[in-house]
Amino acid sequence: MPVVTIQITREGSGPGRDAATKEEKAALIKGASQLLLDVLNKPVNSTFVVIEEVDTDNWGWEGMSITEYRKLQRDGKK
Amino acid sequence: MPVVTIQITREGSGPGRDAATKEEKAALIKGASQLLLDVLNKPVNSTFVVIEEVDTDNWGWEGMSITEYRKLQRDGKK
Amino acid sequence: MPVVTIQITREGSGPGRDAATKEEKAALIKGASQLLLDVLNKPVNSTFVVIEEVDTDNWGWEGMSITEYRKLQRDGKK
Amino acid sequence: MPVVTIQITREGSGPGRDAATKEEKAALIKGASQLLLDVLNKPVNSTFVVIEEVDTDNWGWEGMSITEYRKLQRDGKK
Amino acid sequence: MPVVTIQITREGSGPGRDAATKEEKAALIKGASQLLLDVLNKPVNSTFVVIEEVDTDNWGWEGMSITEYRKLQRDGKK
Amino acid sequence: MPVVTIQITREGSGPGRDAATKEEKAALIKGASQLLLDVLNKPVNSTFVVIEEVDTDNWGWEGMSITEYRKLQRDGKK
Repeated sequence: MPVVTIQITREGSGPGRDAATKEEKAALIKGASQLLLDVLNKPVNSTFVVIEEVDTDNWGWEGMSITEYRKLQRDGKK
Repeated sequence: MPVVTIQITREGSGPGRDAATKEEKAALIKGASQLLLDVLNKPVNSTFVVIEEVDTDNWGWEGMSITEYRKLQRDGKK
Repeated sequence: MPVVTIQITREGSGPGRDAATKEEKAALIKGASQLLLDVLNKPVNSTFVVIEEVDTDNWGWEGMSITEYRKLQRDGKK
Repeated sequence: MPVVTIQITREGSGPGRDAATKEEKAALIKGASQLLLDVLNKPVNSTFVVIEEVDTDNWGWEGMSITEYRKLQRDGKK
Repeated sequence: MPVVTIQITREGSGPGRDAATKEEKAALIKGASQLLLDVLNKPVNSTFVVIEEVDTDNWGWEGMSITEYRKLQRDGKK
Repeated sequence: MPVVTIQITREGSGPGRDAATKEEKAALIKGASQLLLDVLNKPVNSTFVVIEEVDTDNWGWEGMSITEYRKLQRDGKK
């Protein structure tokens, strides 16, 4: 009966994308369910996976938003 | 001081609806607050209820997204 | 596929008890599952309920811990 | 390695605004990171902050939604 | 910057154990971090994993606690 | 009506302590409530703070548990 919650920023994982794709989400769901089966013998039909996408303005690291953090990275300051 | 978090998929509970209605959400809030009062004597003014609606692409069960799961159900495969 | 998370302080609901009883927890589980069935037609076998009990030192309200808050209540200051 | 999750209703903190601003979110992130540094010596580069904004229809208090609650306040009934 | 939260019941995955072992937890952490790297290119040093173990009295499914559910299973009624 | 959840590892912030103290928790509660008041004008009597302490075996970073991570730090490998 596990619940796996995956919180990620709403960003693309490559050029031209601005969020995780359906395929990536499906891979996260499949992989997380498989992990619980492999490690703890939890049948996949008893595992829930919830993906929460968080705006980069709403996620903080190092005391600043990820929006700001990414800007510093693009400017070569991170 | 309870907090009740209700996570549901963003789907309608009947034909022609694609999400929980305001009335359904109000009923969840009222019912959850009443439950804490009935069972644990928590006054309703000390209970918070938070409803989180999750896209069907972002919710997984049986190793697949609910989007996919609903499709199998419509095709009679579930 | 709902998940209902109920966060409560670890306190008894009456004299001589210092935490929710098994019976009270069972009533919360039953009631929350029933609520989702009644309001959104969610079958009870698709609803998870998770009860999180939090020490009164770890729960804050009005800028103080519930441990402190209860003391003020006992002293008639709340 | 702390994670601070701040759940707020999606409302403006003053006239003419209907949600927390970027500046307010940045202040929450900065303040929460600083708090963990001040109190527990957690370096700011090990603290994540996640801000979750919840629609007023989806947040309940006193057995009703905040949408309803705000209406009663505007009508002078709260 | 992902956070992966894995909620499981506090039960052993085999005879003679009553909770997930250190090794199983380490495998969950490693696997979840790897999953985020594989699917979304998230470096492992930016992923947090939090495992929450929940007493079987505090987890509900099908309207009953997992304590009760396991008893029905042992009695061949599930 | 904010809820601030602070997840930390169960570790002392200095020598001779193995968990956050009552005073540190009280400071987190007070500081988080004050932050919401300062930034978003939320009255302290409408803010809940929940502190979740997580065993170092149950928290992962860089693909390993914090138990392991601390060991590497003590050995000068981090």
